[in-house]
Amino acid sequence: MNSDRLERVMARMKENGLMQMAVSDPMSIYYLTGQRIYPGERMLALLLRRGEKPVLFLNELFTAKNGPWETVYYNDSDDAVSLMVPFINENEKLGIDKDMPSRFLISLMEKNAASGYVNASGNVDLVRAVKAPDEQEAMIKSSEINDRAMGRFTLLVKEGLTESQIASLIPDIYKEEGAQGVSFSPIVSFGMNAADPHHGPGSSVLTKGQCVLFDVGGKYDGYCSDMTRTFFTAPPTDKQKEVYNTVLEANLAAEDMIRPGVRLSDIDKTARDIITKAGYGKYFTHRLGHFIGLTEHEYGDVSSSSDWIAEPGMTFSCEPGIYLPGDYGVRIEDLVLVTETGCKVLNAYPKELTVLAI
Amino acid sequence: MNSDRLERVMARMKENGLMQMAVSDPMSIYYLTGQRIYPGERMLALLLRRGEKPVLFLNELFTAKNGPWETVYYNDSDDAVSLMVPFINENEKLGIDKDMPSRFLISLMEKNAASGYVNASGNVDLVRAVKAPDEQEAMIKSSEINDRAMGRFTLLVKEGLTESQIASLIPDIYKEEGAQGVSFSPIVSFGMNAADPHHGPGSSVLTKGQCVLFDVGGKYDGYCSDMTRTFFTAPPTDKQKEVYNTVLEANLAAEDMIRPGVRLSDIDKTARDIITKAGYGKYFTHRLGHFIGLTEHEYGDVSSSSDWIAEPGMTFSCEPGIYLPGDYGVRIEDLVLVTETGCKVLNAYPKELTVLAI
Repeated sequence: MNSDRLERVMARMKENGLMQMAVSDPMSIYYLTGQRIYPGERMLALLLRRGEKPVLFLNELFTAKNGPWETVYYNDSDDAVSLMVPFINENEKLGIDKDMPSRFLISLMEKNAASGYVNASGNVDLVRAVKAPDEQEAMIKSSEINDRAMGRFTLLVKEGLTESQIASLIPDIYKEEGAQGVSFSPIVSFGMNAADPHHGPGSSVLTKGQCVLFDVGGKYDGYCSDMTRTFFTAPPTDKQKEVYNTVLEANLAAEDMIRPGVRLSDIDKTARDIITKAGYGKYFTHRLGHFIGLTEHEYGDVSSSSDWIAEPGMTFSCEPGIYLPGDYGVRIEDLVLVTETGCKVLNAYPKELTVLAI
Repeated sequence: MNSDRLERVMARMKENGLMQMAVSDPMSIYYLTGQRIYPGERMLALLLRRGEKPVLFLNELFTAKNGPWETVYYNDSDDAVSLMVPFINENEKLGIDKDMPSRFLISLMEKNAASGYVNASGNVDLVRAVKAPDEQEAMIKSSEINDRAMGRFTLLVKEGLTESQIASLIPDIYKEEGAQGVSFSPIVSFGMNAADPHHGPGSSVLTKGQCVLFDVGGKYDGYCSDMTRTFFTAPPTDKQKEVYNTVLEANLAAEDMIRPGVRLSDIDKTARDIITKAGYGKYFTHRLGHFIGLTEHEYGDVSSSSDWIAEPGMTFSCEPGIYLPGDYGVRIEDLVLVTETGCKVLNAYPKELTVLAI
């Protein structure tokens, strides 16, 4: 099933003039070989060489199925990097994936394994960024589960409960709705905590009038969902309405322009301009979106510094926000899938300003 | 509270003739600064320079308290590595910690940030390996919780249950016993699954006569426990008794020799020789132990390839095992703390061969 993926990576390496590359990200290795191996601190690497069989290096504590690659096992007494060196052409540069722990890269350099070392992660990451039909199907189902789950989370919101109490109920709801589990540690933020985009659920107690932000996702067939909704718990002030609707407008305008050929930096700009024009530019402190798939944050982002162009099969988040320190924050996030003619927004959960009865 | 830790790291750097070093492991940064920051794919680094203030680089999405360091914030549009370069002496080599993702190291190299790059992780990791009294106290309490929790896990073992069913109950028991949560995903293995040291709990159903292996740990005050016990569910055969008692003998003999000045490779050898002499050498497929503290696997191992010498304050696991593929496996693991005169075994849960009534 994965030989097509390997071929696409090899084709990219050829295009980029790269003869050899060491992939170490366990999720990329799963993507390319179907082998789920969590090596911890031990070395795991898939060496890709044009015109030759890939070689998988792993500790004998783990087992890999056979496939169109050679497997080299080592044990806890071996110097794993030394076993890799003979397979590397020392007269060519070696591509390295972005996540390889530096201890392995430095060891390769000290052993003069190759003539140079380049970050060649894109050869794999850009293939992973464009989902095949079976992956798209899993992403769609994963977000359908997330829509249903969000509906249930809103029912948990009651005055007097803490963020942690609500967050602790989330994993089981994902399972009940058909997910394997959460795709990341759920974010539940009340009031001013929502002004910190990465707030972890804590002991803050919900009082009437605070906003409630859920940033949550589950996994289906290995693929991650990720959605944010922000609710109010009392009729919002005019300013709260303005903030909320500015974020919503930015979210909708950005999603509206997504189609093949559009620069991702322009999507970020569209959302950012709306928020800036409304006077909240400095309170939108992060990129508009990130790629997603087998992990909740995959390589590639929707930001002013991206030079990527949207193409069919890409899935990423669209998540503008306004964060007013010490007061509250609003973020509205959907996942989108770029189609041949536009984009499919994977989340159908309503986005209009909603006041929850607590 | 952590300036002493920074000083010890700086002293090691001086001893090793290293002028500057970039620390990127979030847990090491927590250890040195008291700041818990989980940066995901974004760059986080603490630059240590002899004779100058440390500099912490982090994305403005996160906040760090003030301390005896300078903080440089960047945003999602910045090239974070470029902001670091002016702080690095280009005529000196730069120490890198073992876990820095290669994308940052390669970017530093491309910018000629330093005259060379070395794995200098030991300067931090060896300080972390030797626990201060307050850390020792937390490790002791964490293992006391683990002892109590193990007693409760044995009560969960019933014919007809799956590994996953039992494993799913474990996190709550840790919390009830006073832990913050698990320190790693619990391992519950039945019968032949126990012959795979890294088996993940699955849908295997317990039948009478199978062994049941628990490899589990919780966290207390940030510090991890980790213990393995293997139980039988029917009176063991003579061979099972022999296998079990060989592992137990190896565990006891290794723990018995731990004191300051002993080479860690000799501790591994003592356990391995006992298992080899009994004819099971090739079925003990991993190192004897690993270091542990703020994370469940810290740098440093107890293996034939280690050149470390035991010193007071070190905490590591002692976990011999015999794994008979397709049949069953036995592992007995304690944590130990090296004291001034010997060692304190942190786990008091009984190790004698036990048959659980299921």
